[in-house]
Amino acid sequence: MTIITLLTDFGTTDPFVGVMKGVILGINPQVELVDLCHGVSPHDVLEAAFLLHTAYRYFPPGTIHVVVVDPGVGGERRPLLAEGIHGYYLAPDNGVLSYLYASGEIQRVRALTKAEYFLHPVSQTFHGRDIFAPVAAHLSRIGRADPFGEAVIDVVKIDLPGVEKRGRGVLIGSVRHVDRFGNLITNISAEDLATLPRPWKVKIKGQTIQGLTSSYDAIPPGVAGAIIGSAGTLEVFIHRGSAAKTLQVKRGSRVRVETAVSLRRARRGAWPKKGRSG
Amino acid sequence: MTIITLLTDFGTTDPFVGVMKGVILGINPQVELVDLCHGVSPHDVLEAAFLLHTAYRYFPPGTIHVVVVDPGVGGERRPLLAEGIHGYYLAPDNGVLSYLYASGEIQRVRALTKAEYFLHPVSQTFHGRDIFAPVAAHLSRIGRADPFGEAVIDVVKIDLPGVEKRGRGVLIGSVRHVDRFGNLITNISAEDLATLPRPWKVKIKGQTIQGLTSSYDAIPPGVAGAIIGSAGTLEVFIHRGSAAKTLQVKRGSRVRVETAVSLRRARRGAWPKKGRSG
Amino acid sequence: MTIITLLTDFGTTDPFVGVMKGVILGINPQVELVDLCHGVSPHDVLEAAFLLHTAYRYFPPGTIHVVVVDPGVGGERRPLLAEGIHGYYLAPDNGVLSYLYASGEIQRVRALTKAEYFLHPVSQTFHGRDIFAPVAAHLSRIGRADPFGEAVIDVVKIDLPGVEKRGRGVLIGSVRHVDRFGNLITNISAEDLATLPRPWKVKIKGQTIQGLTSSYDAIPPGVAGAIIGSAGTLEVFIHRGSAAKTLQVKRGSRVRVETAVSLRRARRGAWPKKGRSG
Repeated sequence: MTIITLLTDFGTTDPFVGVMKGVILGINPQVELVDLCHGVSPHDVLEAAFLLHTAYRYFPPGTIHVVVVDPGVGGERRPLLAEGIHGYYLAPDNGVLSYLYASGEIQRVRALTKAEYFLHPVSQTFHGRDIFAPVAAHLSRIGRADPFGEAVIDVVKIDLPGVEKRGRGVLIGSVRHVDRFGNLITNISAEDLATLPRPWKVKIKGQTIQGLTSSYDAIPPGVAGAIIGSAGTLEVFIHRGSAAKTLQVKRGSRVRVETAVSLRRARRGAWPKKGRSG
Repeated sequence: MTIITLLTDFGTTDPFVGVMKGVILGINPQVELVDLCHGVSPHDVLEAAFLLHTAYRYFPPGTIHVVVVDPGVGGERRPLLAEGIHGYYLAPDNGVLSYLYASGEIQRVRALTKAEYFLHPVSQTFHGRDIFAPVAAHLSRIGRADPFGEAVIDVVKIDLPGVEKRGRGVLIGSVRHVDRFGNLITNISAEDLATLPRPWKVKIKGQTIQGLTSSYDAIPPGVAGAIIGSAGTLEVFIHRGSAAKTLQVKRGSRVRVETAVSLRRARRGAWPKKGRSG
Repeated sequence: MTIITLLTDFGTTDPFVGVMKGVILGINPQVELVDLCHGVSPHDVLEAAFLLHTAYRYFPPGTIHVVVVDPGVGGERRPLLAEGIHGYYLAPDNGVLSYLYASGEIQRVRALTKAEYFLHPVSQTFHGRDIFAPVAAHLSRIGRADPFGEAVIDVVKIDLPGVEKRGRGVLIGSVRHVDRFGNLITNISAEDLATLPRPWKVKIKGQTIQGLTSSYDAIPPGVAGAIIGSAGTLEVFIHRGSAAKTLQVKRGSRVRVETAVSLRRARRGAWPKKGRSG
């Protein structure tokens, strides 16, 4: 059974997601449906792009990911089917696949032009139901992307915020996502950090955090800490609290990591084992 | 595999929905469970009725829809099993099937009286778990409605807000639903509009919108527009914003569509192709 | 097909739950996944413990319940696999299984020590993905708990709030959960109440409720009532309103039930049939 995941900004107060599932199951009852996330902020293409980026590797090969964060629905933007190393991606051509383009996951992109796979009449406002869901279901039956449209190369890519290295001792990144717990997930990867002599300190919104911890509860409740999170990047948190609320930080905020002593004194250290280190 | 959908006001902070699924799967593991929507406002029978109305057509024939928005649970109201053209509907007799009665979808209604299909002891407060879920599961196995109770005709029907035509040039309808994006879904259908000479203007809460657009992004961000939405009815929106918040409109608000010029000058127009028209 | 349920505090704005499902289906596609609830308040172990306690009985034998409310993730707390009469429970050793220990449901507990069943590298912050999900999937294939680790006995148990009987005529309990409707679910069971001579009155936050009703709608809208709820315990509600909001009551608040007349006059009564009684 092919897995079809759904990632949308449809929330939980409308039957949009349920209706997409009805359409899919009407075409192919032999699929496994998984809700990836429906709480993307309305129209927030960049947020959806990041969430997809952190999630897709955890699904079996051949999984079909349907991404419907689509403020341009019904307009000029094309519906796409991207073929990746790990699976398929159905999404509007609005940049929501940008992280996957950047990481090399995507191998080929097609524009969905074969209307015989759509649900008719195609509405002006809900292509999740009328285009993406039925194409996902047909794709799960056919198992090949080529019947759905021709390859295209001029896709929309969002300029993704990068990590800047300043000299030997400073990294400047940014908060890419605030999760349900108020944890601040940044784009500074463990690999980025490994280029920086230790010990480290993390600066965000006027707060300085000394070193990284190896677990949330290695520091007292209510205190801010830094850790390598589940996305493999630096994460700022408050143990049993919300870093986003307490530090008043939103997505996009700047994060700075720097070597905490003069570089002459910095020693190369091992990864933290327990408690504070780094 | 039969599909069983669940539409409730149970929200996402309690295990009520999960427990219903446990009961269903304990009776029939061979069903496909779909969450239609659990974010109906507490006790809002009319909202659930509308959402069901917009959704049921998109499921395969024979689908069993379980609707539990049931403020009268445990009281005199009867639990029902309605047989429709597209599927089955299990719901309390409180009017939540009113749109389906009005549209001709429902062919026969039975009162659920056969307690051998219930989960015992039947609680006073959770018939979703104790009556509707087990009956849905048994129905998915048996495939016929007649074992579950006798047909009844005196069901509760809510008086559904209609669309009024005034003269040749004016339609008065109302907002029937506010979706997650703050879009205002009205009860004025594309067919209703087709009876009105063009060009049109839409009036709501002191705001006037000229004509209909063919996509949300055909107008600038932050500006109000009107479109035929995915329910096949007039929808008022703000591109990349919330019409509900900006216009301060709630469900029930009046919407007026009128021919924008003197009727003598009005010409019969085609459906909008691109950008504003109508 | 084995059922795997997921109970977490992950909410609906992140793909954490979806990713866990991807991991599970990658190991065993032949499982039935059920979301028990993901709206547990962040880090609220006691709330999750109570919700699990009200839910597990409604699933078929052998169901695997995965409970990830885990503020100590990555620290010293052990991941556990508990074998119960009704099924299996995967959870951190933080007390979230306390109700099940107290009720006698749990027969044996093992510490998850066999890292060959984990997803590597194991992150410091998301053992739902890296330990609990893969172990649940492997357990659903293997069908036995012993390969996953040795039995342990020194598990963490939360001191559960009890019900106190004062003399013959008074019971003191507390609100254990506030549900989506604002209903106040207490820990005073129907069995506890049966030890108290009738008629009863219920006192909470300065409000006195005379007797119990047999359905929410047996009292007028907006008025507070008491009923035996679906958890089998005393529940305080406001018909078509929120008792939590109106009475300003939170979890933990004291509830007192007492015989409403002098004990000399109290008569032993039957369970309420209709409307107010008790």
